[in-house]
Amino acid sequence: VSAERVVAVLGRGVVPPGTPILRGDDLGVLRGDGIFETAHVRGGTAWLLEQHLDRMERSAALLELALPHRDSLAELVGQALAAWPAEVEGSIRLVCTRGAEIGPGPVTVFATVAPVPAAVVAARTAGIAVRTATIGLPAELRPGTPWLLGGAKTVSYAVNLATQRWAQDNGADDALWVSADGYALEGPTSTLVWLADATLWTVPAPRTGILAGITARYLLDHADALGLRAGEAMVTPAQLRRTEGVWFTASVRGVAALTSLDGDPLPVAAELSARIRELLGFS
Amino acid sequence: VSAERVVAVLGRGVVPPGTPILRGDDLGVLRGDGIFETAHVRGGTAWLLEQHLDRMERSAALLELALPHRDSLAELVGQALAAWPAEVEGSIRLVCTRGAEIGPGPVTVFATVAPVPAAVVAARTAGIAVRTATIGLPAELRPGTPWLLGGAKTVSYAVNLATQRWAQDNGADDALWVSADGYALEGPTSTLVWLADATLWTVPAPRTGILAGITARYLLDHADALGLRAGEAMVTPAQLRRTEGVWFTASVRGVAALTSLDGDPLPVAAELSARIRELLGFS
Repeated sequence: VSAERVVAVLGRGVVPPGTPILRGDDLGVLRGDGIFETAHVRGGTAWLLEQHLDRMERSAALLELALPHRDSLAELVGQALAAWPAEVEGSIRLVCTRGAEIGPGPVTVFATVAPVPAAVVAARTAGIAVRTATIGLPAELRPGTPWLLGGAKTVSYAVNLATQRWAQDNGADDALWVSADGYALEGPTSTLVWLADATLWTVPAPRTGILAGITARYLLDHADALGLRAGEAMVTPAQLRRTEGVWFTASVRGVAALTSLDGDPLPVAAELSARIRELLGFS
Repeated sequence: VSAERVVAVLGRGVVPPGTPILRGDDLGVLRGDGIFETAHVRGGTAWLLEQHLDRMERSAALLELALPHRDSLAELVGQALAAWPAEVEGSIRLVCTRGAEIGPGPVTVFATVAPVPAAVVAARTAGIAVRTATIGLPAELRPGTPWLLGGAKTVSYAVNLATQRWAQDNGADDALWVSADGYALEGPTSTLVWLADATLWTVPAPRTGILAGITARYLLDHADALGLRAGEAMVTPAQLRRTEGVWFTASVRGVAALTSLDGDPLPVAAELSARIRELLGFS
């Protein structure tokens, strides 16, 4: 079953998907001055929506952005999802920009629902080859430098996309950002998770300024259902090579095992990967 | 004399300024996935337009973006400027995003013309107080890490704007980015220039991955008209304090003297500042 993209605008509801909705002087496009969240759409609902709205409020605070009340945002999400066929898996994006440059305000708020690309679905079972790329920053810098917007999910993703293009131009599927001091941090659009000592680990977000992954948090909070413990730690690419499994998690991707890192095969815990997919509700 | 904002769209011409022109799934707003240039509008023309189009082509190459031919871009600029009163100073932005997510292509291309804010005009004579802020990266990292998009003028400016907000929240007018290894690099929206040894200096762009400033280049190329030489060098904030004058240059700002750095007064070469403004055509 396929589905057409859905677009809904705050205060206006669903519009035909090709409708222009943003002015040329919207700071979202002139300056990447906005925030967003992406959630997985399943059974006609946005999975973990409350956690996404929580994170969006944190992003708005970091950008000093007048995000509308979460009830309005939840209503907008509801309007968009009502126009989406409940039997089709999708991704919903919720976007809030600073609005027209002549402001201040009002902010521009809209939601889009789109099908999940086939390559994303395939990666859940096939896994992904990953290359490391430096992010250039020391691992623990950003908590002390709020102007670098660590932890904020802004629409200024040009470097995230360029890092993924670079990885793909170099024979991989995705990239793993490594700090200037040699720690693995996160993917440009995903959270790093690994298995060692019967424990699922991820990188501490408050300590590093990476994005606090919602899917990874859910997975680690339910690790006991897999007979595992959960923990947070700093890790290097060399240490990742000696673990029992490495994954990227993300809201729409769900979970994808890293099958190689910089061309070196990684141990793939296929049975555990399947159980993680089941736990997260990705078939 | 005041003027209304002008918006013009490639292939469509001038539209009323509040007209929505971008779809909700335009990657320019979803991902900050686009590039731009801003030029000063004087006497009904865009100053140094050819240099801006050259730089936009370099940005497009770094982002693997299918920028339309420069003749089309120049025509779009001409359409926008024809709707702007020639006697009013303005700024023109030329934007190219990757277009709708369902692409590839076509790209979204438009131009806006807007008045120059009064505070920007005032800073040309009053100067600005500046605070240093680390950019977190080593000064000479980016030439070797193309995925970090050094030298590309993308619309992903959330960190640039956040750095300026942070400086303003802390009593300054603007920020000066400093590398992890202690070199002054650039402002979030401007180029650093300083006077020492009868020479106007700026930071080498290819060596550092900063944006190659068009106004600074013009100024240094015409330094002999001021009886000065021109050069490029690495510089620290401590060294800047011992120079004979420090400026930020930018296309619309023109030139503004730094009157203080982190609260310490800097030497202000008022007479030279006036001659630089005259040389650059900012009254």
